[in-house]
Amino acid sequence: MNNNKMKALYFDGSNLNMVEREIPKINENEVLIKVIKAGICSTDLEIMKGYQNFEGIPGHEFVGIVIESHNEELINKRVVGEINIPCHECEICKRGLTKHCRNIRTFGINNYDGCFAEYTKLPVENIHILPDEISDDYGTFVEPLAAALEIENYIEHDEKISLIGDGRLGLLIAMVLKIKGYDFLHIGKHEEKLKISKKMGIKTEMYNDDIVDEYKYNFDSVIEATGNESGLKTALDICIPSGKIILKSTFNKKINIDISHIVVNEYHLIGSRCGDFKKAIDFIRMYNPPLNDLISCYSSFDNSLKAIDEARKKIKVIINLL
Amino acid sequence: MNNNKMKALYFDGSNLNMVEREIPKINENEVLIKVIKAGICSTDLEIMKGYQNFEGIPGHEFVGIVIESHNEELINKRVVGEINIPCHECEICKRGLTKHCRNIRTFGINNYDGCFAEYTKLPVENIHILPDEISDDYGTFVEPLAAALEIENYIEHDEKISLIGDGRLGLLIAMVLKIKGYDFLHIGKHEEKLKISKKMGIKTEMYNDDIVDEYKYNFDSVIEATGNESGLKTALDICIPSGKIILKSTFNKKINIDISHIVVNEYHLIGSRCGDFKKAIDFIRMYNPPLNDLISCYSSFDNSLKAIDEARKKIKVIINLL
Repeated sequence: MNNNKMKALYFDGSNLNMVEREIPKINENEVLIKVIKAGICSTDLEIMKGYQNFEGIPGHEFVGIVIESHNEELINKRVVGEINIPCHECEICKRGLTKHCRNIRTFGINNYDGCFAEYTKLPVENIHILPDEISDDYGTFVEPLAAALEIENYIEHDEKISLIGDGRLGLLIAMVLKIKGYDFLHIGKHEEKLKISKKMGIKTEMYNDDIVDEYKYNFDSVIEATGNESGLKTALDICIPSGKIILKSTFNKKINIDISHIVVNEYHLIGSRCGDFKKAIDFIRMYNPPLNDLISCYSSFDNSLKAIDEARKKIKVIINLL
Repeated sequence: MNNNKMKALYFDGSNLNMVEREIPKINENEVLIKVIKAGICSTDLEIMKGYQNFEGIPGHEFVGIVIESHNEELINKRVVGEINIPCHECEICKRGLTKHCRNIRTFGINNYDGCFAEYTKLPVENIHILPDEISDDYGTFVEPLAAALEIENYIEHDEKISLIGDGRLGLLIAMVLKIKGYDFLHIGKHEEKLKISKKMGIKTEMYNDDIVDEYKYNFDSVIEATGNESGLKTALDICIPSGKIILKSTFNKKINIDISHIVVNEYHLIGSRCGDFKKAIDFIRMYNPPLNDLISCYSSFDNSLKAIDEARKKIKVIINLL
């Protein structure tokens, strides 16, 4: 810690730059973390396009070491961190829905600096100690894995299921569903990405114009993880009436939909976002999923601007900070 | 039946006219019905704007008398009729989802003539005999009442519930929820219509710009029955994150929505359409709901073109055909 300064990526609303910033100061409810590794997520890339009007240090998938905490037991522990920072005072928090707090701040996404920096801080309640048997690389997957595991709340093993989207989250969901024994069709647009799914023994299909005809009204549940407008359209086309469409994509754009189509076909659209970190950590311990297959490359922090620029074309890019 | 001709309202894709048509011929699975009364529904008004690209005889809420049937027991019976006409052969029918049949035709709405005519026909399986204690007027409400009763599948008595929309369906839903003991806020835009709700002892509120602030993220379940774009927007504003928005509106327009807002707030959007006729008939018998309060006026069939034209400004308009 030279002069209490650190290097950080900072998004000013228009551009992302490497800057020098103060090392965060913590209050009694927070911990200061030295970041070991950080993962680049599609949400980070959407932020650069204006999503959430975020200004600050992006990044929300990380593994780090606690170096300052009012709770002595946490010092030097390797940790991961939940991203929602609720106020605990609004009526939504009081109704127990803290992840939807009215005044919510979100680590690296909304009104709270994230982990694309040498140091970061989080409320102590957000911190989970990473068991020794989970590697740093795997630790960076805890946050998106928790989100992927959420899907299980909405699907059944005896349903006809399709997953659309072969990006970072799509492949992670594919891995979770396969390991958990679901039979499903994985539809994507990138042959090299679908190969990873195929390697896991998953049925895959490249998207083409005929697919909608072939699978028209076919699936009981469709998981939409494409991150773009056409994904929802395809989901509505291939989902059986009265079926479920589980929405995992967040992107910075309003889209046009035909509400009558949803009403007449009695679709259930289910928005799904963050998940349970404990479940995700247990999942890694129990199943040792082949997360390595999703890592496209590593970048040093010094080269991270370029890495983020190129991440669009890759699966998981991990920034090594330590 | 003069020369096998009848009077009917016919929509040619642009205009609705009173025409002379052949009395429908029935096959062995159908019944011929002399229409006694028909109700005008918002969907009929949407059809005149191009909804479903319907051409033919509109109208789908009716009470009539069976005058021809291969099932002798039905002759001279007073009946109501379900509107979905499935093929029973496609894979969706075979999966038991006949109301979502891939080749569905819908009485007076899609590829099948409806009841704004002296005579109409329906498959015998669509027919329900109306018990003597239910009046003709009340019988015309069976179809929309069945749709209103569907809501019960998605809400709980201990939830904070709001109903948006004070049109025909909105008021009918209000009546059902009140009778079934739900506590809810009914938000509308028409003082004279909300009065009907208020008279039933329902809490009502006129929509205004402050309402969204006042009830921001307040309700566990929001029932959207406004029939317009702004209704969904309001529903998304006043529904608590992770809450349910039950969509009852069908209208002839695509609308712009922010999918990320649904994902991040983990909303459940539930499309809901037709319901169970038996339940609706039982509901009328059991509770004798004050459906008369929803009838704005009656029209002779000869004046029905004018009545339809004026129905937009009214609640339920009933056409007397007999």
